[in-house]
Amino acid sequence: MKKAVILVSGGLDSAVALAIAKDEGYQCHALSIDYGQRHKAELKAAHQVATQTSVVEHKWLTFDLTTIGGSALTDNSIAVPTQSIDTIPVTYVPARNTIFLSLALGWAEVLSAFDIFIGVNAVDYSGYPDCRPAFIESFEHMANLATKSGVEGQSFKIQTPLIKLSKAEIIEKGLTLGVDFSLTLSCYQATDKGYACGVCEACRLRAKGFQDLGVSDPTPYLI
Amino acid sequence: MKKAVILVSGGLDSAVALAIAKDEGYQCHALSIDYGQRHKAELKAAHQVATQTSVVEHKWLTFDLTTIGGSALTDNSIAVPTQSIDTIPVTYVPARNTIFLSLALGWAEVLSAFDIFIGVNAVDYSGYPDCRPAFIESFEHMANLATKSGVEGQSFKIQTPLIKLSKAEIIEKGLTLGVDFSLTLSCYQATDKGYACGVCEACRLRAKGFQDLGVSDPTPYLI
Repeated sequence: MKKAVILVSGGLDSAVALAIAKDEGYQCHALSIDYGQRHKAELKAAHQVATQTSVVEHKWLTFDLTTIGGSALTDNSIAVPTQSIDTIPVTYVPARNTIFLSLALGWAEVLSAFDIFIGVNAVDYSGYPDCRPAFIESFEHMANLATKSGVEGQSFKIQTPLIKLSKAEIIEKGLTLGVDFSLTLSCYQATDKGYACGVCEACRLRAKGFQDLGVSDPTPYLI
Repeated sequence: MKKAVILVSGGLDSAVALAIAKDEGYQCHALSIDYGQRHKAELKAAHQVATQTSVVEHKWLTFDLTTIGGSALTDNSIAVPTQSIDTIPVTYVPARNTIFLSLALGWAEVLSAFDIFIGVNAVDYSGYPDCRPAFIESFEHMANLATKSGVEGQSFKIQTPLIKLSKAEIIEKGLTLGVDFSLTLSCYQATDKGYACGVCEACRLRAKGFQDLGVSDPTPYLI
């Protein structure tokens, strides 16, 4: 049975990416990262999502990006914006997906898992550079030069099944695969008990997706 | 004054890379990584090296790669080899330089430091894939697609001033720049007090470098 490492944040997108990997017949090894994010409640959601999907293993790695800061998600003195803007917002975390994929790559190489799933999306998203196809392609190329497995002729593939889907299409795909969205948490400033603010960009993108699809969002909102 | 992030392991090579960055006029921000390595004593050496070089800041990031394992440096059940072999040895840590450079990239972006120094070498080395020029070039390309700074037209450069030098040439360069090699520690299985084994590949490459140059190595060896 082929193996995959799947980055699971606790959000909607990665839950669907995990469900797709499972549906495609992969033995799923879920990886979640505690990087000191403001919305730590997403890690509890990640655990619930991984458990519901019956992954082989759910690993957590911890390191503290608040010592670097530079983002509203890793520096509490920077407020989470509640309005859309035309530029990359302050919720961008410098090099986050590069770091996450690097850690996933390390684990994948140890497991001899040559598929790494990440739920990035470049349609209904915040313009983060590390969600775009060009970034993913360049990471994949680099990964195969970086590793012993790559040198020995194996080929790592970064799987991004959601990258060209709208949020509504992602939710629809998840519902088809039995994803329980009540377990997921998208909000950048969720309370410890998992209540979403309803106004940050992650909340707004999520709400619009459910609305476009005409399905109700099971998320408990503060407002 | 232009800024740089320099990965400082505590070993000989990164001490010289740091000295070169300093000599080139960079404001130096040193980064060391506690990844659960067997030779934790190198972190004390890293601190001494960074202090001696009068860096602006020395940051440590901690995460535990022993939960992933797959290397003699992160899994104590795998012995450190004491003989050379023709293939990539078990001291290779999956995706280590990718992870290190990713963390350096995140910090560099926050600092607006567009030069990242790493003391990789592809001459007197252990054949690790993530020390080769092709890997470094691909990482640099990826970094500029991954980041907000890259999108906004800034360009990150991965600086590898040692990549084509022999170990003797690296030591010679360091001596010219005033590096105190007694502060550095290369051994993969150094004791907590900083005694080197003298037989692992890191020790053998180091010893040969000093020998080729005709200079005595200040490292305290167990044998």
